[in-house]
Amino acid sequence: MTKKRTERATIANVAKAAGVSTATAGRVLGGYGYSSEEIRNRVQDAAKTLGYRPNRLARGLITGQTQTIGVVAADIGSPYYASAMRGIADVARTAGFGAIITNSDENLQLEREAVELLLEKQVDGIIVSPADPENSAHLQAAIEAGCPVVQLDRIAYPLQADSVTVDNRGAAKDAVARLLRSGHTRIAVVGELETSPFGDLAEFIDTAGRVRLDPQTLYPSWQRLLGYLEAHWEAQVPVLPGLIGRVGKYSAESARSCVRQLMLADAPPSAIFASDGVMATGTVQALRDQEARIPQDVSLVCFDDLEWMQFFGPGITAVAQPVRELGSMAASLLLERIGGDTSPRRHTVLSAQLVERGSISERLGVPTD
Amino acid sequence: MTKKRTERATIANVAKAAGVSTATAGRVLGGYGYSSEEIRNRVQDAAKTLGYRPNRLARGLITGQTQTIGVVAADIGSPYYASAMRGIADVARTAGFGAIITNSDENLQLEREAVELLLEKQVDGIIVSPADPENSAHLQAAIEAGCPVVQLDRIAYPLQADSVTVDNRGAAKDAVARLLRSGHTRIAVVGELETSPFGDLAEFIDTAGRVRLDPQTLYPSWQRLLGYLEAHWEAQVPVLPGLIGRVGKYSAESARSCVRQLMLADAPPSAIFASDGVMATGTVQALRDQEARIPQDVSLVCFDDLEWMQFFGPGITAVAQPVRELGSMAASLLLERIGGDTSPRRHTVLSAQLVERGSISERLGVPTD
Repeated sequence: MTKKRTERATIANVAKAAGVSTATAGRVLGGYGYSSEEIRNRVQDAAKTLGYRPNRLARGLITGQTQTIGVVAADIGSPYYASAMRGIADVARTAGFGAIITNSDENLQLEREAVELLLEKQVDGIIVSPADPENSAHLQAAIEAGCPVVQLDRIAYPLQADSVTVDNRGAAKDAVARLLRSGHTRIAVVGELETSPFGDLAEFIDTAGRVRLDPQTLYPSWQRLLGYLEAHWEAQVPVLPGLIGRVGKYSAESARSCVRQLMLADAPPSAIFASDGVMATGTVQALRDQEARIPQDVSLVCFDDLEWMQFFGPGITAVAQPVRELGSMAASLLLERIGGDTSPRRHTVLSAQLVERGSISERLGVPTD
Repeated sequence: MTKKRTERATIANVAKAAGVSTATAGRVLGGYGYSSEEIRNRVQDAAKTLGYRPNRLARGLITGQTQTIGVVAADIGSPYYASAMRGIADVARTAGFGAIITNSDENLQLEREAVELLLEKQVDGIIVSPADPENSAHLQAAIEAGCPVVQLDRIAYPLQADSVTVDNRGAAKDAVARLLRSGHTRIAVVGELETSPFGDLAEFIDTAGRVRLDPQTLYPSWQRLLGYLEAHWEAQVPVLPGLIGRVGKYSAESARSCVRQLMLADAPPSAIFASDGVMATGTVQALRDQEARIPQDVSLVCFDDLEWMQFFGPGITAVAQPVRELGSMAASLLLERIGGDTSPRRHTVLSAQLVERGSISERLGVPTD
């Protein structure tokens, strides 16, 4: 930049140029309180010359509205948030709202900072995928300060806020039932199931196979495990605890080593249900490491339909979430709250579709071990 | 929400509760102008009771700094922006800055709205991947209003702003040279090359094979085409215009139909250079449609290293951009400008690495058609 940077046009600079006090300039530019016509003209002329932006934000300090929705994504780079943002931005734009996004990276401290930043930016409402269901006090505080919150993808149940989620349990049940119908009885599940309120599965399911906890409190991976269990119970196929792959660190690499162990066991699975896109990536890598063919050696169904699943091997059968609709519905709900809707909180649950491709082999009548 | 929504704590509400004028409350809360101690206490007590946020933003209206970086992503869901945002957010956070992101979806009008929104949010600077190299007046206006801009990934050359890009030309040249060294002489390129300042290739390259235009003005796809051409010139292998796949609409589906046509031609390519991740996805789909094996029937090198390239088929040889570093460098440059650095603009170019996998067959000594 060879040219000297122009000074930012602030109220203080406008005031100086107009020869009035900062408070007076603030009154004129904010449109409140009394000022003479002559003063108003001087301030407005100075503001124009300096390029001062008479903006929604400045007005927001007075009226409490900035026509902006804030979004806290859990992982800004995942295809999930890409599609959700399209839905959110479309609805927001139609209503004359802008949308700004921050990222929590699934980290509670970053989520707190993100919410703080959005509140400072005076957003009129926030859409968030809570990083930690047990720690949502900062979100509750935002709501109580007059900034409505809508939860997307997952629910921090103590939070007094609307939510839009997919029917994780029902869709997982359908996917696993599909494998069971093809004769698979040794179906592994691979999911991020370590970071949970329970130490082990026994705290989750009692000895009669009933679930101990209110499923509403469960995160997507646990909801999907529940669907996996229910499909088995309905088909009266025993659940084999050794086939429940609980991945600790949420990464494809962890999923890969989890699947490697499952495949090297004495009685490996004939099918795998990968409970999200990251787990699916690790699963496919592990199967490749073992030179296990899909579906001849192992059948595969994935929750989340990633682009590569269309062209990988025989095509991967996958659960496709209506993510864009989830985003637009979250934005619509939020706009209603911003508009003053004080009706009881709503939990909206959308269905997901199983997209059939070529990754399931038929095992009917064939012994599975 | 069974509980009535608390009213947003605005200056006006604080003023009302404190029994003072809005202007007086604004003075106290903004920390400018004169107020008696008694008035200050009353306003501050009311602000505390109502949960008014004494924020960076309100101070920003006075001081001109909000400690926030704004980012305009071209496609918020691509892995590129995910990694870039990590780099940006890390550097920003270390410096005590927050980062907010908006999306242009490669659309000029949305980019203008995004910049407008960020300026309203009083960001101290903007990182942007310009949607249109010919239309950057709104970005120039932001700079002139005191909001520095750093360009990421691509350059709108008329803009008086720093940039951080990858060496698209050099990396593409290396990738294509790799194919040429393996004996391929019929190498197709598939890239988004329709939306460009030139009608046809003849306006880009003269009859002697020299480039007519300053390569600095070219967008990544065209820079990569230039690398493709240079590799051929250096190897003294003729460029076959019929193998330059110019994809119009930027989508995997368009790339797929482009590659289908290339493969169905009388003299199909023995190798393909896909000039980005979207083109690579379409290319792989088309090869699958044709049941063409990689690398036995067609060799493949992709610009951009997507996750599935590690485990797809024999593994896809790909150009890996240092995207996180691009992001952190852009943020560092921007923070220097925000700090008052008025030195001449800088164009920083980072190298990219070719990651060798199994998608190139050796054609040495083998006739290629």
